[in-house]
Formats: sequence, structure tokens, C-alpha cells
Amino acid sequence: MPYELHYWPGIQGRGEFVRLALEAAGAPYLDVARSEAPGQGMAAMMHYLEDEAVPRPPFACPFLVDGPRVIGQTAAILLYLAPRLGLVGRREADRLWAHQLQLSIADVVDEVHNTHHPIAGSLYYEEQKPEAMRSAELFRRERLPRFLAWFEAVLARNPRNAMGRGPHLVGGRLSYADLSLFQLAEGLGYAFPRAAARALGKAPRVAALHARVAQLPRVAAYLASGRRLPFCEEGIFRRYPELDG
Amino acid sequence: MPYELHYWPGIQGRGEFVRLALEAAGAPYLDVARSEAPGQGMAAMMHYLEDEAVPRPPFACPFLVDGPRVIGQTAAILLYLAPRLGLVGRREADRLWAHQLQLSIADVVDEVHNTHHPIAGSLYYEEQKPEAMRSAELFRRERLPRFLAWFEAVLARNPRNAMGRGPHLVGGRLSYADLSLFQLAEGLGYAFPRAAARALGKAPRVAALHARVAQLPRVAAYLASGRRLPFCEEGIFRRYPELDG
Repeated sequence: MPYELHYWPGIQGRGEFVRLALEAAGAPYLDVARSEAPGQGMAAMMHYLEDEAVPRPPFACPFLVDGPRVIGQTAAILLYLAPRLGLVGRREADRLWAHQLQLSIADVVDEVHNTHHPIAGSLYYEEQKPEAMRSAELFRRERLPRFLAWFEAVLARNPRNAMGRGPHLVGGRLSYADLSLFQLAEGLGYAFPRAAARALGKAPRVAALHARVAQLPRVAAYLASGRRLPFCEEGIFRRYPELDG
Repeated sequence: MPYELHYWPGIQGRGEFVRLALEAAGAPYLDVARSEAPGQGMAAMMHYLEDEAVPRPPFACPFLVDGPRVIGQTAAILLYLAPRLGLVGRREADRLWAHQLQLSIADVVDEVHNTHHPIAGSLYYEEQKPEAMRSAELFRRERLPRFLAWFEAVLARNPRNAMGRGPHLVGGRLSYADLSLFQLAEGLGYAFPRAAARALGKAPRVAALHARVAQLPRVAAYLASGRRLPFCEEGIFRRYPELDG
């Protein structure tokens, strides 16, 4: 049975962190809401969100369906998938560390979303544009450098990266945290091309990880395929030039 | 060795979700940054955040130190602690569900913080008050009822709550998700007394869980002790009457 990923069609969004893990591992999966096959599509996704017969409903997508299991929250999905996909080590300490990194990446993602939707997610960008410009300026100036400096420190302090095989965030091998940091760097480069270039210039290990993940054969094949949706102004990472200073 | 909780002294904040778990389990712990004992206090906490010799530094507090382990991110700390404290069942499905609930509670907490700091966490409330009033109105009107309706549905659909022993979020026994939902209801009641009373009136199972957790002997003793800090306008849940409509 392939894994079922349920997420809005048309955007990368938070679902992309799950897609990248599945793709990098070569795992069979269905991208349910994007499919036109019988029994799939948006109706199949909405069933889990709206049908009162679902005993443990996710609050929102993305969620994963694996047989009887329905798992919501991006980080919880990756916590479940990673050992099954070989995208995290066996030690509890490594699993917790990868999870902690993923949760911190999710925090950055939330702050990026807040740069274009500071007042509320239910309003249009155009209804909160002056506020977005204030929020984005502080994100670019304070938060983006601080987050990237932390990821840079994590890579610098990982002793396994001294052997020239890395850089990896967790131990000496690829983990889902690496894939997620790649996606974060991609998104930042799309949304804030000037600010991200400056910040990544000061975080060379993060930039190197980003370049290296893009070249992994399965990831490169995925990025070149039609399965990879383009960034757009409906997702989390949006290119509004006025927010890039 | 007692667990070491590291968090800002003076506020409940995100550290309170960890404190509640430790207190409800009767686990020995040190609240490091609040302690005046030798080797503790703020300097002990800042060591983990700032010393370059820390191999896996947390991005921010709260974090937990357990022997050689340093674990950041509230939800990851609870993921680690809960099996050790008897605050989650043994089944992987139950553990993932509790974690998913915790991550959704964390999402509400982030949105509550955004009601008084919509532009940036680094600005004072007074520097973003008109924006906060817009953000809070939409939170009260749209998000708060929607989140509480979801928790209510989770409690209603848990078959183990039909036996009169609950209500519990996960299976038939207390989990850290229950403690965290209690804390969320407490905080909402402090920050938005009018809006929270209205919303909890429509979520009777959540209100019942809140009342029941408050009466657990260890929790009740903790809430009555000096270890429980009061809510205040430096934390996540702030009582600004203008934000309660």
C-alpha cells in the first residue's frame, strides 16, 4: 500500500516537507488531493477533515494516511515516516535532535508566513500590506540572520561534518532535517532573493547543504519533474518584491 | 538526578507545558533559571544557549537537560518525557496522536501570541496595538471557536469517554495532551475572559476536561503553590481588555 499524502493541490506549502522525504527515499505514495483517479481528489481529503465518523481527525492538512493511521501535523508525519524511510538514525538522541531541528524549521516557516499575513491568515495580503512590510523588515533584519546563524552553528559543531562527507545536521548521514533545511533555503531564496542571498552568504555550511541536497539523484529527479509544484503567491513562500527591502 | 527545566524566570510561557507534566507526574525537577542555588540561575541557562562548546544547542528555551541530553522545543521535550513520566500510553498510535494534539495546541499558542504581537515579537505591544486589535478580533471570531470545536470533536469521538471516566483526549487515561489543553483553557480564560467563556460554553467537554485536570491532587497542589507563577503581561497569555472585544 502506498502512503497517502493529503494536502492542498496547487501549492508546495507545508506538504512539501513530507513530499521531499517521500521522494528522497524513493517511497511509493499518492498525492491524493492532486489526483484525478477514482476515489481520490479533494473529496477524499475533505472526508478526513469533515466526516464525523473519523475518530481522530487532523485539524488541518497536510496529513498522512497509512492503512488505518491518519497522522496530522508536518513534524509528526516526519517523526512517523523517517524511521520507515531510513531518513533518521536509530539512536533516540538522534531522532529527538532531528525532530527538534524540524520543529525549529517549522517555527521559521510560521514566521515567514507571518511576513505576508501578520494580521490574520483569513485576510488577503492586500488587506494587510503596510503591516506586512513592517513585519517583513524585522524578519529580514533580525530573525532570518538569527535562524541561519543557528543552523550554521549546528552544522559547524557536528563533528561528523569534519570528515568531508557532510554537511549533515544530524550525525554522519542524510536525515529529513537536511531535506527540510534545503526546502527552507529554497523558499527563502524564492521569497526574499536579496535578503536570503545576503544571509546565506554568512551561513556557508547551510548554503553547501542546500546545494548538496539539490544534487541527490532522487531529489534532483523530483525537482525536475512535474510532481514538484512551482513556488507561487498562494503558498508560504511568496515573492512580493516590496517585502524583500 | 532530577530533570532540569530551563526557562525564563517570571513567566509561565511555553515552559509551563513542561512544568505541568513534571508536576502532574510528581517527578523531581529543578527550575534552573528561577533558582538561586550555586551553579543555577540565568547563567546556567545561558550556557546552553550561548556556549560554543554545546554540541547540539537549543535555538531557544524552554529546554530540558537530562544527564547528557539537551532537548529543546516544548513538544519534543514532552515527546521525550511523557513515556518516562507515565503520561502517554505504550502504543505508537497513541503516542503520535498525543503528539499531534500537542503540536496543534502549540499552533493555538502561537496564534494567541500573534494577537498581541502581530508585527514582530521584538517590538513592544504598544508599538503594534492597532494591528493587535485587528488580529485579536479575527482570532476571537474565527480561530478560537474553530480550534475549540476541534478539541470538542476529539473528546466527543473518543469512545473511551463514553464510560464516564474521562474526558481524556487520548484513550482512557490522563496524557500530557490533557494537561496542555487544560493550560490552554486557563490561558485563554485569562487573556480573553469574555471570548473564552463564550467559546467554552460551546465546548462543554473541553470545559469539563479543564475542570477535572484542575482537581487532580498533584495539579491542584501545584496550582496552589508558589511554584505556579501567575499569568502576567510578559507571557503568552496577556490580559489586555481591548483585545477581548
